[in-house]
Amino acid sequence: MAPMAPRKQYRGGVAVLTPRATDFPRWYQDVLAKAELAENGPVRGTMVIRPYGYAIWERMQADVDARIKAAGAVNAYFPLFIPESYLRREAEHIEGFSPELAVVTIGGGKELEEPVVVRPTSETIIGEYLAKWTQSYRDLPLLLNQWANVVRWELRPRLFLRSSEFLWQEGHTAHVDEADAAAYARRIALEVYRDFLTDVLAIPVFIGVKTRRERFAGATNTMTCEGMMGDGKALQMATSHELGQNFAHAFDIDFVGADGAQHLAWTTSWGSSTRMVGGLIMAHGDDNGLRIPPRLAPTQVVVLPVRDDETVVAKAREIGAALTDAGLRVQVDARPGLSFGRRVTDAEIKGIPVRVEVGPRDLAAGNVTLVRRDTSVKTPVPLAEAAGRVPALLDEVQAGLLAEALTLRESRTADVTTVADAAQAAQTGFARIPWRLVGEEGEALLAEEALTVRCLQTPDGEIPAAGVDPDDLVCLIARSY
Amino acid sequence: MAPMAPRKQYRGGVAVLTPRATDFPRWYQDVLAKAELAENGPVRGTMVIRPYGYAIWERMQADVDARIKAAGAVNAYFPLFIPESYLRREAEHIEGFSPELAVVTIGGGKELEEPVVVRPTSETIIGEYLAKWTQSYRDLPLLLNQWANVVRWELRPRLFLRSSEFLWQEGHTAHVDEADAAAYARRIALEVYRDFLTDVLAIPVFIGVKTRRERFAGATNTMTCEGMMGDGKALQMATSHELGQNFAHAFDIDFVGADGAQHLAWTTSWGSSTRMVGGLIMAHGDDNGLRIPPRLAPTQVVVLPVRDDETVVAKAREIGAALTDAGLRVQVDARPGLSFGRRVTDAEIKGIPVRVEVGPRDLAAGNVTLVRRDTSVKTPVPLAEAAGRVPALLDEVQAGLLAEALTLRESRTADVTTVADAAQAAQTGFARIPWRLVGEEGEALLAEEALTVRCLQTPDGEIPAAGVDPDDLVCLIARSY
Repeated sequence: MAPMAPRKQYRGGVAVLTPRATDFPRWYQDVLAKAELAENGPVRGTMVIRPYGYAIWERMQADVDARIKAAGAVNAYFPLFIPESYLRREAEHIEGFSPELAVVTIGGGKELEEPVVVRPTSETIIGEYLAKWTQSYRDLPLLLNQWANVVRWELRPRLFLRSSEFLWQEGHTAHVDEADAAAYARRIALEVYRDFLTDVLAIPVFIGVKTRRERFAGATNTMTCEGMMGDGKALQMATSHELGQNFAHAFDIDFVGADGAQHLAWTTSWGSSTRMVGGLIMAHGDDNGLRIPPRLAPTQVVVLPVRDDETVVAKAREIGAALTDAGLRVQVDARPGLSFGRRVTDAEIKGIPVRVEVGPRDLAAGNVTLVRRDTSVKTPVPLAEAAGRVPALLDEVQAGLLAEALTLRESRTADVTTVADAAQAAQTGFARIPWRLVGEEGEALLAEEALTVRCLQTPDGEIPAAGVDPDDLVCLIARSY
Repeated sequence: MAPMAPRKQYRGGVAVLTPRATDFPRWYQDVLAKAELAENGPVRGTMVIRPYGYAIWERMQADVDARIKAAGAVNAYFPLFIPESYLRREAEHIEGFSPELAVVTIGGGKELEEPVVVRPTSETIIGEYLAKWTQSYRDLPLLLNQWANVVRWELRPRLFLRSSEFLWQEGHTAHVDEADAAAYARRIALEVYRDFLTDVLAIPVFIGVKTRRERFAGATNTMTCEGMMGDGKALQMATSHELGQNFAHAFDIDFVGADGAQHLAWTTSWGSSTRMVGGLIMAHGDDNGLRIPPRLAPTQVVVLPVRDDETVVAKAREIGAALTDAGLRVQVDARPGLSFGRRVTDAEIKGIPVRVEVGPRDLAAGNVTLVRRDTSVKTPVPLAEAAGRVPALLDEVQAGLLAEALTLRESRTADVTTVADAAQAAQTGFARIPWRLVGEEGEALLAEEALTVRCLQTPDGEIPAAGVDPDDLVCLIARSY
């Protein structure tokens, strides 16, 4: 007899989440709803980000923004509306984006003379201004970033993963030569994206470059960070593109060099989006809900009085205050009318990394109980030590989530030597195989089974340097979001 | 003979800004360009916010966001696209906004069945979700805010002041009764907007309520903060609206009360935008450029070596490091190839509150020179004291700018007793006059001369409480942006 699929979890009589093994997409939808992260907007494919979902995004933004600034780029803001003609100036770019455009044809009650496009990305409009601001080699590198909403009409929208409107940052830079552009795009891929994803989101990523087929429309090289989700599928978490002189040519981004002659600049662009929230959910979530890494978590610790009893609640608030004083993000959940069980379930669904449970029996023994969200391990500790013990416990949760994700990825990444074996292994995870055994023909075959080459990398897992023979590279093949 | 209008200022042979007295609007454009704040976008009325302009906005955002959170509201994000039908549900709302709408009619290459509007404001779409999330009186008050871009097609666009797309925050809240809604809208007007404008932007504001004619489309009461610009014109800096039950009715925002019966909620909305950047420029700018209050300034202190000399530059960097260590936002401007004069002019145009000038002669005497941007007063101080003296000097600049703006406002606000005198006084500033001497008829007459009642307030300058007899109020009349 086949093992029965686990059924819905019940807590205090309340059905909570569809188990991941039963139906992963359904589990994802359940988490979005029960953790109050997001819902569908009224216009197809649009998304309402609820306060808890937005708090997660705000913390991602703050950390990524600081890393971008540390890499020397500055923020600016360019218009939402782009003249349709701008997109046509770069042939591959318009070809890639034209099926996804939202077009404004009426403004102020009148038909517009030239329709305007709602930005799907901003290479073109920013290219126009890079051209104005780039006069001399002394103006370079020009390193810009913007936080904005973009619109790409989606046929199969999924909240956070693929929504018609999403929020993101998009960096756009201009450089004096190809080497400087390549080095900067690589620096962003590694120091901003990979380090953020690994060190803050606790999501290990495969880094590498996209094949010609998967490249950004208009790029000469696309670097990517690919995460593995709980169901073994890949999610492209962030990308960094070398655009060569394609946009510089289309928008006349030129400058007078140190040699006194006119030169075309080399540009890059790079982005990360609210899609990362979807990745966070799917990389770490379990059958009880979200599991948010402590460095990111809007609330790192929740203090829960077990009973609605004055002494217990007062003690819980005291501990909460001590934890807040220690610099942690803390919530005391003493909501009246909600049972302890309901409040625990809620904290679990929301993925709060550590709970401090304060019960009358524990208190009588001078203890409280610390509970890790990732492992469910409970540790009674003396009341006086509680606040002091939590920071180290948060570090353990942070490391634990990364280790668990790495273990999953290793267990689901298979080294193979034929395209057929790659296709087989990619049903449950990633297949790693030398690129020379796949090639563009193999890639086309895999595409028929909805499998893609996620990236090409060196055998030791690095982004290949310019000019490396593709035959010396390995590739990772997977199903993907 | 009439006095000659001052001409363009020259610094080191470079024409800088049109003097304000010659042509205020032209001066404003010059500041935008020379301080590298913003430029026109390619689509009429849109705006490119350059890095320095955006850094100013980012600091406004951070401060206003903290105040909004302190007032208990949480951030969320709602879609850019609103079904056209939503706007029609509130009659005054659609009437007010329909001439300004941008409409998307094509999505993903196809004509849309129902056109979607690019949000001009979000009462309608947020109303739809407030209705879903408001079940019981226990869910109230529901206090939301979002940071977003909005689009209002403008016939006479002006950068920052009136652009077709602008950035803002818009708060939307639902309450159990009218009194709670009114108290919250008032709290936002005072504790978020007035306090921010006064304490951070150093712009004194007249507070009060709008007349029926000037109210937000769909509101029952609009509170406003009105600043006076350098040319005596008014700028509406931020508004907070009571929406009564208008939107609750249109979107079914109802809840089960403590009495077990169904009730309609009372809602509010409130906003402040990139328009505040325009207000900052026009309230404090002088003929040499911006003057940014130190609490807001992206760079509070610039350290300028007078000569491109190794010892001098090293000393400047040392002072810069000490100021940074003291927690200040500091820049050392030792750009090679730019004369000291050019760097001073640049710091003045950008409105950096304090300069530390480090010259070889001063250094020989053991001194550096501190220069206030607001008064141009120069003070030589011993090198060892420089870093320690700057924080107090920044406080003086902050207070000085507020005092100067208050003095201007007082000198240009006239108490009058006839509509004719009000019209006269409003040519150069504000006219204050009992509302009973104006009335809606007087207001209509003034409108013919492009003069508006900016707000109604109590005789001692407060926002009138609900139910106060309008005949007991005074009003402020001005030209406005």
